[in-house]
Amino acid sequence: MAPQLDAFFKSVDTEADHYIDRLAQAVAIPSISAEEERREDVIKMGHWLKGQLEQLGAHMEARDLGKQPHKEHLQLPPAIIGRYPAKKDDSKRTILVYGHYDVQPANLSDGWATEPFKLSVDNKGRMYGRGSTDDKGPVLGWVNVIESHQKSGVDFPVNLLMCFEGMEEYGSEGLDDFIIAECKPGKFFADADAVCISDNYWLGTEKPCLTYGLRGCSYYSIEIHGPGQDLHSGVFGGTAQEPMTDLVRVMSSLVDTNGTILIDGIKDLVAPVTEEEKSLYKDIAFTMDNLYESLGSKTGIFPDKERTLMGRWRYPSLSLHGVEGAFSAPGAKTVIPAKVTGKFSIRTVPDMEPDDVDKLVFAHCNKFFETLQSKNTMRVFLQHTGKWWVASPKHWNFTAAAKAVEKVWGVKPDLTREGGSIPVTLTFEQATGKNVLLLPMGSSTDAAHSINEKLDRRNYIEGIKLLGAYLHYVAEEPTH
Amino acid sequence: MAPQLDAFFKSVDTEADHYIDRLAQAVAIPSISAEEERREDVIKMGHWLKGQLEQLGAHMEARDLGKQPHKEHLQLPPAIIGRYPAKKDDSKRTILVYGHYDVQPANLSDGWATEPFKLSVDNKGRMYGRGSTDDKGPVLGWVNVIESHQKSGVDFPVNLLMCFEGMEEYGSEGLDDFIIAECKPGKFFADADAVCISDNYWLGTEKPCLTYGLRGCSYYSIEIHGPGQDLHSGVFGGTAQEPMTDLVRVMSSLVDTNGTILIDGIKDLVAPVTEEEKSLYKDIAFTMDNLYESLGSKTGIFPDKERTLMGRWRYPSLSLHGVEGAFSAPGAKTVIPAKVTGKFSIRTVPDMEPDDVDKLVFAHCNKFFETLQSKNTMRVFLQHTGKWWVASPKHWNFTAAAKAVEKVWGVKPDLTREGGSIPVTLTFEQATGKNVLLLPMGSSTDAAHSINEKLDRRNYIEGIKLLGAYLHYVAEEPTH
Repeated sequence: MAPQLDAFFKSVDTEADHYIDRLAQAVAIPSISAEEERREDVIKMGHWLKGQLEQLGAHMEARDLGKQPHKEHLQLPPAIIGRYPAKKDDSKRTILVYGHYDVQPANLSDGWATEPFKLSVDNKGRMYGRGSTDDKGPVLGWVNVIESHQKSGVDFPVNLLMCFEGMEEYGSEGLDDFIIAECKPGKFFADADAVCISDNYWLGTEKPCLTYGLRGCSYYSIEIHGPGQDLHSGVFGGTAQEPMTDLVRVMSSLVDTNGTILIDGIKDLVAPVTEEEKSLYKDIAFTMDNLYESLGSKTGIFPDKERTLMGRWRYPSLSLHGVEGAFSAPGAKTVIPAKVTGKFSIRTVPDMEPDDVDKLVFAHCNKFFETLQSKNTMRVFLQHTGKWWVASPKHWNFTAAAKAVEKVWGVKPDLTREGGSIPVTLTFEQATGKNVLLLPMGSSTDAAHSINEKLDRRNYIEGIKLLGAYLHYVAEEPTH
Repeated sequence: MAPQLDAFFKSVDTEADHYIDRLAQAVAIPSISAEEERREDVIKMGHWLKGQLEQLGAHMEARDLGKQPHKEHLQLPPAIIGRYPAKKDDSKRTILVYGHYDVQPANLSDGWATEPFKLSVDNKGRMYGRGSTDDKGPVLGWVNVIESHQKSGVDFPVNLLMCFEGMEEYGSEGLDDFIIAECKPGKFFADADAVCISDNYWLGTEKPCLTYGLRGCSYYSIEIHGPGQDLHSGVFGGTAQEPMTDLVRVMSSLVDTNGTILIDGIKDLVAPVTEEEKSLYKDIAFTMDNLYESLGSKTGIFPDKERTLMGRWRYPSLSLHGVEGAFSAPGAKTVIPAKVTGKFSIRTVPDMEPDDVDKLVFAHCNKFFETLQSKNTMRVFLQHTGKWWVASPKHWNFTAAAKAVEKVWGVKPDLTREGGSIPVTLTFEQATGKNVLLLPMGSSTDAAHSINEKLDRRNYIEGIKLLGAYLHYVAEEPTH
């Protein structure tokens, strides 16, 4: 039978201002993981979060993740892990949830309309502030779910395991090994029956979605060097082979204007589109105007929504990010850079094995560079890799979430994939061996990572209801 | 008859330590024109120089050049101009000399072995310090020439006009108009019979040279933009046309690994090599090992010295300097830059008219970009231009300088051109209508603009003698 959620929902509405105030408190702590001088604030934020949950009776631990690799003077923020209720109820399912309490850098001078570390709510209910949607809103969503169960007297439907980290915006340093260790038998996360992550966004602004796939990312550097030091183009132009000349040629051999990857063999690694899959795209709530609005231009590759969504979700892409070591400032400098490093990455999809992609990339670059017959030296290497992830959207974890969406929002959710990567998703899947669900709270216009990041009040408050409802549906969903 | 220089030379040797101390005082003033916070030091340096010359009885003026364009809060350093003797002797020729008292930026942390603003003399007589060779040593050379004439009782052979500026390392802001105005009849520089600039270097380390040609430089930007703001490659990779993809293609269409310019029509603008010119190169004191040593590698384009010197002096070259607006830091960032600007410049030679070069560059880029059929927008524009300069090395100004070199160094100088640009050279030629001579003091290993800039004690002291001897020979050279 359908869960009785009315009292819980009513409490969420009653406590809305209190929950917004809680978000304001969290936003006020500038927990920027990428900035060394903010590390104390990140750690403070972790302990503040732990305190909020302890006040609600959760069993919480701050786990030391050691020192930051390559920056041994810097302590990593702790993994804040917990269990609610504090004592496990063996009659109930156990759901592991993940979020992060660190945020991207932000300065008023970057162009923010309001102070980034002060939550500012406008008359349309848009709550501006760094971390509001990414990911403090969703993380506090779980806290508020617990509080509204207590306040409404509704029995908590599951055993909730929590894993909140403080380095997500800086590569989740130290977290993978920790998760793998804690998912082993007898350890903290061993009992998880399913995993839920709320750290992504709706495809648009009106229709909720459940996300079952992510692309991977393999990031490469092409380093070309020749002279022993930077040269003056007046003195040496026309007498020396220039690394930049070779680099732009190698970079231009990788991809064309329409995004077609020109590396031999890459497209053979991509799983073919099935007829069933083709039919999925037409129903997704997405239009070309959505794309143009988010691009801020009409410079899309494809004229139709289906091929655009496939371009984002299920085909690989190759982006050239920039050049290190060359002149990159405004103005004019007549330098011949001695060593330049081109950066590019490939978004990967099923069935591309990262090792196979590496081999094709290296072979292509080396073969192309050879045709230049340059005396300069080239080295191509992988900077980092994260594999793609695709879950089954027919799993009970997703079925439960879909029912919760319908209960709270009154519509069936879109089933989406994402073009980006959330590497921890794959880690949780592999470490627990269980289904992982991405259940977003915010919408496509939230501007995570940009200036004027916001979370709509409606998405926050209804999102708290959604997370709570999900726990009720997932508690009683048939598992066969 | 040959000038009697012995007493003057002897005084230079006697006063050597005093002249080195004068250079140390000048180096100690960090007159960095490119750094706003050093502007007071640049101005201080100008007044210090004026004071040194006034103590020797010269008539000196500090001329206001106004505010810095686009930085109206910044006062430009004055042009320090002067005349020695203070009262013109109408029986003597008038020689106008130019130098600059500002320097390139320098920080110990850039990799200097010694404090850059403290002149440090090692046991091989290498005098390290920012500005030692570029251009405080040569500028003080003229001061020391005056002092040693006074101390030795040798009659000063010419009327010396001086023009010393404080913005050479930052585009000589404000100077061109000033020179043009002061060369007009009745103005300060109106009487100049010839011009001498000491602000370049020997081709090697052992043989002095006189320089009669410089390449010009036309500096361009290729700006390509598409999306309204930077995009995340996970979300938008594979759905949007990316400006960087187009930019590397346009940049790679300009030049190849061997430095061949691929812009239609450029090579037709270049003056053909005559048989007479061909014969000049083989006698120049330069070897391929000199090139490899200064490159710090063997990545030269041509295997022979003649073609290499022609590549530097008399053929155009095109260098790609870098990209503004893309990711240029170390590490990995998965950004799709919304607007990127590629920078490149062409070193120009006779008979390339800058306007013709612009037209060919714009036409090439626009035509090539059209073949990409991109929805992005491209704009190509000229950042700045400076024309090439070639003087007649058979002019009496050069003949006199060659005699001075032979007197001081015991060898005939190489007659060289340079690959770089000294735009003020052309300004003086056009404004005075007289012959301009480049008479370098330092050697090829002085590392002007780099870390560990130095001037050899020998080049400084013998260089003072050379400048003095030049004034004697130029005073009596037949002018037919």
